[in-house]
Amino acid sequence: MKIVIVGGVAGGASAAARARRIDEHAEIVVFERGPDVSFANCGLPYYLGGEITDRKKLLVTTAEKLKARFNLDVRTLSKVDRIDRKAKTVLVRNLQTDETYTESYDKLILSPGAAPLRPDIRGVHFPAVHTLRNLEDTDKIKAVIDSGITHAVVVGGGFIGLEMVEALVHKKIHTTLVERNPQVLGVLDQEMSTPILQELRKHGVNVILSDTVKEFLPADNGVSVVLEKSGTYPAGLVILGLGVKPENTLAIQSGLRTGERGGLIVNDHLQTNDSDIYAVGDAIEVSDVVSEMKGQVPLAGPANRQGRLAADHALGRTKAKYRGTQGTAIVRVFGKVAALTGMSEKMLKKRKIDFRSIYIHPANHAGYYPGAEGMSLKLLFAPKDGRILGAQAVGGSGVDKRIDVLSVAIQARWTVEDLEEVELCYAPPFGSAKDPINMAGFVASGLQRGDHPQLSFSDYLAMEQKPYLLDVRDASEFAAGALPGAMHIPVDDLRSRLAELPKGQPIAVYCQVGQRGYIATRILMQHGYNVVNLSGGYRTWLLWQK
Amino acid sequence: MKIVIVGGVAGGASAAARARRIDEHAEIVVFERGPDVSFANCGLPYYLGGEITDRKKLLVTTAEKLKARFNLDVRTLSKVDRIDRKAKTVLVRNLQTDETYTESYDKLILSPGAAPLRPDIRGVHFPAVHTLRNLEDTDKIKAVIDSGITHAVVVGGGFIGLEMVEALVHKKIHTTLVERNPQVLGVLDQEMSTPILQELRKHGVNVILSDTVKEFLPADNGVSVVLEKSGTYPAGLVILGLGVKPENTLAIQSGLRTGERGGLIVNDHLQTNDSDIYAVGDAIEVSDVVSEMKGQVPLAGPANRQGRLAADHALGRTKAKYRGTQGTAIVRVFGKVAALTGMSEKMLKKRKIDFRSIYIHPANHAGYYPGAEGMSLKLLFAPKDGRILGAQAVGGSGVDKRIDVLSVAIQARWTVEDLEEVELCYAPPFGSAKDPINMAGFVASGLQRGDHPQLSFSDYLAMEQKPYLLDVRDASEFAAGALPGAMHIPVDDLRSRLAELPKGQPIAVYCQVGQRGYIATRILMQHGYNVVNLSGGYRTWLLWQK
Repeated sequence: MKIVIVGGVAGGASAAARARRIDEHAEIVVFERGPDVSFANCGLPYYLGGEITDRKKLLVTTAEKLKARFNLDVRTLSKVDRIDRKAKTVLVRNLQTDETYTESYDKLILSPGAAPLRPDIRGVHFPAVHTLRNLEDTDKIKAVIDSGITHAVVVGGGFIGLEMVEALVHKKIHTTLVERNPQVLGVLDQEMSTPILQELRKHGVNVILSDTVKEFLPADNGVSVVLEKSGTYPAGLVILGLGVKPENTLAIQSGLRTGERGGLIVNDHLQTNDSDIYAVGDAIEVSDVVSEMKGQVPLAGPANRQGRLAADHALGRTKAKYRGTQGTAIVRVFGKVAALTGMSEKMLKKRKIDFRSIYIHPANHAGYYPGAEGMSLKLLFAPKDGRILGAQAVGGSGVDKRIDVLSVAIQARWTVEDLEEVELCYAPPFGSAKDPINMAGFVASGLQRGDHPQLSFSDYLAMEQKPYLLDVRDASEFAAGALPGAMHIPVDDLRSRLAELPKGQPIAVYCQVGQRGYIATRILMQHGYNVVNLSGGYRTWLLWQK
Repeated sequence: MKIVIVGGVAGGASAAARARRIDEHAEIVVFERGPDVSFANCGLPYYLGGEITDRKKLLVTTAEKLKARFNLDVRTLSKVDRIDRKAKTVLVRNLQTDETYTESYDKLILSPGAAPLRPDIRGVHFPAVHTLRNLEDTDKIKAVIDSGITHAVVVGGGFIGLEMVEALVHKKIHTTLVERNPQVLGVLDQEMSTPILQELRKHGVNVILSDTVKEFLPADNGVSVVLEKSGTYPAGLVILGLGVKPENTLAIQSGLRTGERGGLIVNDHLQTNDSDIYAVGDAIEVSDVVSEMKGQVPLAGPANRQGRLAADHALGRTKAKYRGTQGTAIVRVFGKVAALTGMSEKMLKKRKIDFRSIYIHPANHAGYYPGAEGMSLKLLFAPKDGRILGAQAVGGSGVDKRIDVLSVAIQARWTVEDLEEVELCYAPPFGSAKDPINMAGFVASGLQRGDHPQLSFSDYLAMEQKPYLLDVRDASEFAAGALPGAMHIPVDDLRSRLAELPKGQPIAVYCQVGQRGYIATRILMQHGYNVVNLSGGYRTWLLWQK
């Protein structure tokens, strides 16, 4: 058996090591176009920001080490120019000598990855304008940073854009972030990205939303970044973080099929339309675990697991099957963390999938234990059966834990009622007797059972005829800021002041995070009022205020 | 509808608030024997250790606040002396006036809790000898600590015992811990408790295992604690942390049935043998989620959820059903954290349930990102179908997250193969592209598939005829300490030095954490050697060394 792997990072490296462990006697050849295999691509921004100080740490392994440990024939600076599917050979170009040769395969695994987008605008190829994919890019960017530049512009506020913004600010560089959408972190629903936007501004980042780069003009020590609407910014360094495009030229030329967005089409076993050719990683289309629709999800975790599975299947383990991807992801932006799993509200709307949402704003652990940090958590679920569709959280410590738990819940096809009964670790430094996950389950299940009708702020904001608005917080909270036009009766006074409220007319109550609003809703419902709870309270309202 | 609740902490308080939210018009009376309702019982050791400085933070709520918000009739210092099940009344004693009166009920919810054990040994009632259950106990202990004592003895190395040890050390008190078993934290398997034992000793705690208190003798400024075997220790303060006993005298006198260990027997709806009387919290027997056997699990999370469910069912929500408890728990001991969920190896052995185990020793996040902390994770699963039976982890950051994820996996009745495919949050500060959970899934599933026969250290240690022992680590690791009698060939040299190994004879290989041992096992298997991998490598071996 001879396995040839194209691409030696993440999925490709995982496939190669896995293939060797399964079959000690197989011939395994890995072609990598770049000079490095299996480097820590997710670590590059942290190295540039100075958190990781030793460049060697980014080199997870080398061709020599892979030879010694796994008896792999890894050939770097080697580009596969062509696949001859009939002959089952690849044509390889040695990038150092420019010589070409053919290599045969029994099974071929493609892990070409995806290249950063570089849009066709004037000046985009100036030396000051960079993208970040590999160690070569990193070295170039580091040289610019170390040259003592004072201003930088990052274009694109996704994961890599935000990580680079933080890295540049760590390096004391005045940084402007330009984002085409009216929000940063477009994978989140807009309101959930508000705390990240605030955190960026708090750290002096000049965030420009809803604008794009018109052109780059030459300037002393860099470029002038000319925006469509918001003026011109000098930059010794520009980072383009505009997303990635599958590197599938080779595959397409070989007659392998791609989907609408250019990702290679594979079956559950990660086989392309040629059953001897597998494809993994950023270059392929994957099924979404929740919607079962196809999409591209360029993430390291799925790439690594796909590499394993492709090797398994190629070596005769025919049960190996990829379950799909749910887009679980996380980013730290200075002191805040944002994470998500499953589908967002905007994806659900786009795909016309029915959903309900709830918001909670719990602390990461018992409030009476010092150091509790807040978070906002949004849970999306199906009205029909309560199945969990997606979750987003933003805050401090403990965000990763709750999204991980919900990621498993989604993969287990759980409903919100299952979350009520989750039994998580509790001691005061770690959680609460009723964990945020339980709380999310209580709120969502109560909504499903009809215990507390609610109104989401997105619906409230869209209403022309607003309901009678009742704030049930304490007087001091009300005085510090309230929704325009709200009446005020603290929840503890509500039973004795019912007569002040209009019967018949719709009433929307709210508190700080939703819990007292829920109690008020229960009281009013049972006294014959027509009432809804504004989901997640004033803290959710604030997420809608930029 | 009139609901009477006996006990106003955790389960009782949850039941009362829940009952009101469901039914605004019900009459709800709560009798609490002590002066406080719903205090932060899990926070008491942290207050005593000085981490929580404000005693008011321990008072989650008060009778007055519960009246205002939930219209609850909460009567503190009120003890229920008798239940007349026929008449559906309780006889209540006002502990301030010693007057008694009867109160009728439609539904009765018992949440009496459990009392700390105080064994019948000489001197156990001396004023220096304390147990910790409520704020009164806390105030007494705090007064002793503040009086300037220099030495303390904690009897019992369970959760509360260990939290109190840490609290006392924070207060600069020389502390001796006496534990009857040969390990601390008896809920863990012994080897998994080793890092906690080491952490205690590192912080100057005098830990005495396998010994018990013979008697307490009077002494100046406290007592002398006389142990059966290990001498006598002076103590200005003794804390008994010997577990708890359900406070079921009232229930038993009323003809409610209890199980073998004294816990009240309830059905899935938390009804006792009297369908109008529910019981919740530390006083009841619950089903184990994994084994479905009955046991007592005095934890705050389950108590709170049981209170909710009992209220639901009492108010006609007949679908409300308790799923059972899986014993998810966590404790921080100085800089270490230990957590578990599901069954331990010793429980499985005791109940004669077939199992397999694996150990891994991953970092909490990508090793190349600074600040990675190690952990040891043990996973127990069924040989038949790979179903996850239990998990234990000990280490630093991220232990809580992994046990929470595994807790959900157990409740979802997942197998180890499901863990291979989990998609968790990954960015370098939070995890790894292959998370510890994926790694545990890989190792356990590989074992299930027969990819790598393994030998556990518990079996290895019990073998009379040891196998040929091969250490495949680097020379420097081998030199720093190895298993007695091990031969040494680094894994990277193995293929070229196969001839040095005995064919036919059983070989046990090991590395530092198991991964290189796995690769070596695969190499040797496929070259016809009779080989097993010592599960979890040298790091696991060290867990067996005290």
